[in-house]
Amino acid sequence: MSERFERVTIVGVGLIGGSLGLALRERKLVGRVVGVGHRRVSMDRALEMGAVDETTLDLIEGVRDADLVVLSTAIGRITQLGERMVPHLKGGCIVSDVGSTKSEIVRKFEEVFPEDVHFVGAHPIAGSEKRGIPFARSDLFVGAVCVLTPTSKTHAGAARRLADLWSDVGARVATLSPDEHDTILARTSHLPHLAAVTLIHMLQGSDTSFVGTGLHDTTRVASSDVDIWCDIFLTNREAVLKAMEEFDTRMSELRRAVEAGDRERLAVILAAAKSRRDGLWHDDPAKQ
Amino acid sequence: MSERFERVTIVGVGLIGGSLGLALRERKLVGRVVGVGHRRVSMDRALEMGAVDETTLDLIEGVRDADLVVLSTAIGRITQLGERMVPHLKGGCIVSDVGSTKSEIVRKFEEVFPEDVHFVGAHPIAGSEKRGIPFARSDLFVGAVCVLTPTSKTHAGAARRLADLWSDVGARVATLSPDEHDTILARTSHLPHLAAVTLIHMLQGSDTSFVGTGLHDTTRVASSDVDIWCDIFLTNREAVLKAMEEFDTRMSELRRAVEAGDRERLAVILAAAKSRRDGLWHDDPAKQ
Repeated sequence: MSERFERVTIVGVGLIGGSLGLALRERKLVGRVVGVGHRRVSMDRALEMGAVDETTLDLIEGVRDADLVVLSTAIGRITQLGERMVPHLKGGCIVSDVGSTKSEIVRKFEEVFPEDVHFVGAHPIAGSEKRGIPFARSDLFVGAVCVLTPTSKTHAGAARRLADLWSDVGARVATLSPDEHDTILARTSHLPHLAAVTLIHMLQGSDTSFVGTGLHDTTRVASSDVDIWCDIFLTNREAVLKAMEEFDTRMSELRRAVEAGDRERLAVILAAAKSRRDGLWHDDPAKQ
Repeated sequence: MSERFERVTIVGVGLIGGSLGLALRERKLVGRVVGVGHRRVSMDRALEMGAVDETTLDLIEGVRDADLVVLSTAIGRITQLGERMVPHLKGGCIVSDVGSTKSEIVRKFEEVFPEDVHFVGAHPIAGSEKRGIPFARSDLFVGAVCVLTPTSKTHAGAARRLADLWSDVGARVATLSPDEHDTILARTSHLPHLAAVTLIHMLQGSDTSFVGTGLHDTTRVASSDVDIWCDIFLTNREAVLKAMEEFDTRMSELRRAVEAGDRERLAVILAAAKSRRDGLWHDDPAKQ
């Protein structure tokens, strides 16, 4: 059982930040949760929903006495806000984030943070399809994976306390290096997003009258927030470009099988994909 | 109001065939529905659920006195069964199908069917994610698009009667040439399927521990039946290969924007895809 945080400040009380606040408060895991945002109405909603104990629109005021600060905004703002608040944090403060890419954030924070402020990168893989405090739920992280990305420079005790916190809200905590994280997520999340966007992008004139549930689900993520995803792609360029190459290679195998009319080869690839996916989501009621 | 069919034979009483039977019987649109299948247990289930009035395992017996035969099996079997039953159909009989590709089926049937048997190709775009009679529902086609693919050789009266039938079970009937149908569906259905398979195919070792709801939905169709989809790709090779090229072209636009770190361009493409998709499924609760 690790020492509990007395004062936790969540910067950006949207779906992820709000759900974290709800989970921490409902389970009485920390002393007090402070919410920082830039829209009064969202802050009021967060208070009303019980996601935070108090709120402020002033970043510096919000983080000044914090024992833990969790940056829960889009990636671009995470780095901006992180740098801005550094001089105002108290010694021993732990800072974390929930950004979907990690290498750039971790590199930047390891440059600018002083010795006595401990940064630990984190990425809870949850809830990518909705945005904003109205969708926050105290059980959002139950069963979800939360990746921590400590490096050789990371304070071990801080990493342990953060792992305990995520574990206490129900997440399965995994550890990867920032680069490993970004390489894997490029394949499991960023490339699927680009594929979805491309599938919509290539539709012609009357195609849209002939769409079914398949296209609906395949492209769902293409309805996501544009800025958040620009941040993701631009802070993970190399891994995303590499994943695009891998995708091309695999797609070409399918193309060759179709071109050759090679049913056997086609069946092998489709069956392998089916069995792999069925193994991933074996309780999926929608599978055939 | 068109003349009602006295005896409708559905060959293959699975999700689509079973749902058609349920809809026809529940709405009392036809005299009698006969189910033909090759598994006794499925036939019994179809009877029990009220999807058919009678069943047989004998194709010839099942179609002999039919006024309308609807072939509701995988594409490969549609052509086989169609050819096999031809000599046994009564004069004036209308034959249709529910295959997901149309050019090859229509071409073949127009070759082998005699003058007094009227074939009209059809493809109800519904229910691709499940298989089998247990999933059949009388409202499966309500609001769904059913594409008819008549050609210059198609009997106009037969096409009209079939359009009325699909309309009467709730479908929105559209008409395309077989080639138009296959070209459009290559983009709206077949390519998304190949993309989903490829996304699963490219996952490496531990990637599978780091997947979220995005990948789940993007790849759902990769859990579909392998044989059905081999049939689809191999009976629509040209259009599928062309769609793959179009996909490549569009994906390359995204690649160039990511490579160049061109946020503005990236945002334009993502925003266009988002607005297009939001327009397609505007009531989607999952959209952001």
